[in-house]
Amino acid sequence: MLFHVRMDVQLPPGMPADQAAQLKADEKALAQRLQEEGKWRHLWRIAGQYANVSIFDVGGNEELHALLMSLPLFPYMKIDVTPLCRHPSSIRTNDF
Amino acid sequence: MLFHVRMDVQLPPGMPADQAAQLKADEKALAQRLQEEGKWRHLWRIAGQYANVSIFDVGGNEELHALLMSLPLFPYMKIDVTPLCRHPSSIRTNDF
Amino acid sequence: MLFHVRMDVQLPPGMPADQAAQLKADEKALAQRLQEEGKWRHLWRIAGQYANVSIFDVGGNEELHALLMSLPLFPYMKIDVTPLCRHPSSIRTNDF
Amino acid sequence: MLFHVRMDVQLPPGMPADQAAQLKADEKALAQRLQEEGKWRHLWRIAGQYANVSIFDVGGNEELHALLMSLPLFPYMKIDVTPLCRHPSSIRTNDF
Amino acid sequence: MLFHVRMDVQLPPGMPADQAAQLKADEKALAQRLQEEGKWRHLWRIAGQYANVSIFDVGGNEELHALLMSLPLFPYMKIDVTPLCRHPSSIRTNDF
Amino acid sequence: MLFHVRMDVQLPPGMPADQAAQLKADEKALAQRLQEEGKWRHLWRIAGQYANVSIFDVGGNEELHALLMSLPLFPYMKIDVTPLCRHPSSIRTNDF
Amino acid sequence: MLFHVRMDVQLPPGMPADQAAQLKADEKALAQRLQEEGKWRHLWRIAGQYANVSIFDVGGNEELHALLMSLPLFPYMKIDVTPLCRHPSSIRTNDF
Amino acid sequence: MLFHVRMDVQLPPGMPADQAAQLKADEKALAQRLQEEGKWRHLWRIAGQYANVSIFDVGGNEELHALLMSLPLFPYMKIDVTPLCRHPSSIRTNDF
Amino acid sequence: MLFHVRMDVQLPPGMPADQAAQLKADEKALAQRLQEEGKWRHLWRIAGQYANVSIFDVGGNEELHALLMSLPLFPYMKIDVTPLCRHPSSIRTNDF
Amino acid sequence: MLFHVRMDVQLPPGMPADQAAQLKADEKALAQRLQEEGKWRHLWRIAGQYANVSIFDVGGNEELHALLMSLPLFPYMKIDVTPLCRHPSSIRTNDF
Repeated sequence: MLFHVRMDVQLPPGMPADQAAQLKADEKALAQRLQEEGKWRHLWRIAGQYANVSIFDVGGNEELHALLMSLPLFPYMKIDVTPLCRHPSSIRTNDF
Repeated sequence: MLFHVRMDVQLPPGMPADQAAQLKADEKALAQRLQEEGKWRHLWRIAGQYANVSIFDVGGNEELHALLMSLPLFPYMKIDVTPLCRHPSSIRTNDF
Repeated sequence: MLFHVRMDVQLPPGMPADQAAQLKADEKALAQRLQEEGKWRHLWRIAGQYANVSIFDVGGNEELHALLMSLPLFPYMKIDVTPLCRHPSSIRTNDF
Repeated sequence: MLFHVRMDVQLPPGMPADQAAQLKADEKALAQRLQEEGKWRHLWRIAGQYANVSIFDVGGNEELHALLMSLPLFPYMKIDVTPLCRHPSSIRTNDF
Repeated sequence: MLFHVRMDVQLPPGMPADQAAQLKADEKALAQRLQEEGKWRHLWRIAGQYANVSIFDVGGNEELHALLMSLPLFPYMKIDVTPLCRHPSSIRTNDF
Repeated sequence: MLFHVRMDVQLPPGMPADQAAQLKADEKALAQRLQEEGKWRHLWRIAGQYANVSIFDVGGNEELHALLMSLPLFPYMKIDVTPLCRHPSSIRTNDF
Repeated sequence: MLFHVRMDVQLPPGMPADQAAQLKADEKALAQRLQEEGKWRHLWRIAGQYANVSIFDVGGNEELHALLMSLPLFPYMKIDVTPLCRHPSSIRTNDF
Repeated sequence: MLFHVRMDVQLPPGMPADQAAQLKADEKALAQRLQEEGKWRHLWRIAGQYANVSIFDVGGNEELHALLMSLPLFPYMKIDVTPLCRHPSSIRTNDF
Repeated sequence: MLFHVRMDVQLPPGMPADQAAQLKADEKALAQRLQEEGKWRHLWRIAGQYANVSIFDVGGNEELHALLMSLPLFPYMKIDVTPLCRHPSSIRTNDF
Repeated sequence: MLFHVRMDVQLPPGMPADQAAQLKADEKALAQRLQEEGKWRHLWRIAGQYANVSIFDVGGNEELHALLMSLPLFPYMKIDVTPLCRHPSSIRTNDF
């Protein structure tokens, strides 16, 4: 089932540059693996912000929480989750 | 280019049932045509609310506004638009 | 899986008393049936408000939305949904 | 009587890892003891957040405050308390 | 135990004057009876607003809700409840 | 005249424990003296929060501000002041 | 003593024009009398809004509330009151 | 022309006391000079807060911004500006 | 001098179509005349909303308020005014 | 196409003065180059705040995000983007 997730990233101002770079590289690697597995279905940048809108396709709340907790940037993100379902006007049969 | 649009519908309490039904039918017909044309790329219901999250793929701000204005439910919706762009960690080449 | 749902009811001031009474009776009957079926696991009144906090136990987002949409008071409620999962410190094995 | 309590945890970024681990272990031990005693009736994680929704069953405001103050993570939590009471549509006789 | 209650009154603009007057008279009569019984311990007007701050002394959440629900103006008020307890710096032994 | 004052305390995370203890002891001593003088008429703890609701009885805005400024915890508090007056339904003649 | 008062006016859309005109004329007459008496010390329009910022000089909370309640537009205004006092950097001796 | 300006001061917790004292002394000196020049027409303390409400009388937006930028406490203040104009019910001819 | 003005339009649901059309035509005629006179320097539609962002170039607060008050849609708009001034990094000498 | 962008700058309190000066100089140089290229069409200071309102004229969301990300002050700014389009009442043919 699908969940709409918005993540706003806020790294501490004093974080050393190489630590930040490592975190971002780890985050990217995991994000790409989860996309390849189909769990992280969409990932968009919000124009002008260090934030993203994502659509996750998971088995339920537990799996979603486990995925989000596993993100290297989790401790530095404000995360809002909105459960989605099929819209009666949608013409797509695989988009929910 | 992509835009994230959230629409919250609020029909006036006193609207006659057949007028509401006609509005919804017209809205659905147009929504499905715009999906078929590829302009309205995703359309999801927010669980528990008379609201949706949509992704539009249009040529720009002007086209987006014209599409939204043409919706039969436009006068009864609160609409929030967020411009999206490609996320550097996205593995998809056609999702922006 | 569990969802935390808060519902704030706001009946239109001009609704006839018998219509309101019928709506509430229908709502109560359905709420009790859903409780008996185990779908609506908890239902509490918020002190001082015409509002409740509920815990639903459903198969997923789709079922939750269908249940909420079927409530007679749905058109008159503001509903907020929060997906829950098991807390690592919980001692209960059947409370999620 | 029942109280709905939401706790959002925010540990200071610079807290040493072992201090954080000790705090969490102490918190967990106390949370489990209070659950066993029946004071902390429900404890759920909010999906995607370092936050929980809890239901406490205590003698009153004083006992609730004393319990919350005794939590090792209390200085690092934003806590919101909502008093609950029995909902007239509830079918349960022991859930308030 | 004590509860801090703020009530903001909003009568519908079209309510007939005599209906409003009757409501207010009934509200006043009940408010005074509850004060005499010691349930409604303090009742203050907020300067410049059709609103009050009140302190209720009741047996618990259930009694508080029943009292508030019984107020003639209940359908026209926005009510916020905050549970209070004894402050460790208070010098009074009967003010909680 | 009466003022409703809410104070939310937020001590800096890095404040040494003995400095915090001294501040709190000084605050308590002053709070108790002001209560004995009748200036600080009520002082309640908000359940679950490091915050209080207070009622001050002072000659006016100037005296209120001077008292609040003199509190040792003043630099660490968010303070909201609401002027109160007698409620027409109050049965008490000395509670305003 | 001085109070800062902001008033936002919202007349019901369906109010007859002559009733609105009469209300405004009465409001103006009273506002001018209170200014002449020195109670309503300043009265400014907020640019672009049907709202004002005012400074009242009254004996206390009770007098302020009585004055505001007596305004013909009171039922149609959202009013926010902020108690003021002398600023230590003010060079004026009669401006508080 | 007149502008309503609210300033909320927030000095960093770790600022040395003598630096804070110097800043405040410089602020006071400039505030008093601007009052003497008639640019800073009113300056009031908000009761219970390290904040003020001020009325500036300047030639326009540019002059207002230059004055506010020149305040020694500017980097530590949250500032909200509201343009004012003459109220049609004002009896004063020099208060705008 | 320049002011940033945001206007959100909300026509009453029950307004007759011809009255709405007349209002909009009058609004358009005046908006175009003010643009020709150089008072209303920019006028943009916000994508997806019945709202605009405008830049006014007027002599001051009084003229701005008079212009806004004269708009036929004024009673149906929520208006927010922000005074602007020249930015030190602007390369334009006529854009403030 | 045009985008309305508001930027609120917040430099960390402890940033060395020369680092801040260098950042601002770099920001100014880039802002001026982008204005000369026509990408950054308007740039205004908000009176009383370390913030600006800007109008960008770019090919779309991607270009806007790339420009904003390239600003030296980007890590220290809160940025809000609003897509604009031509207003039907605008008399200008090149202002969108």
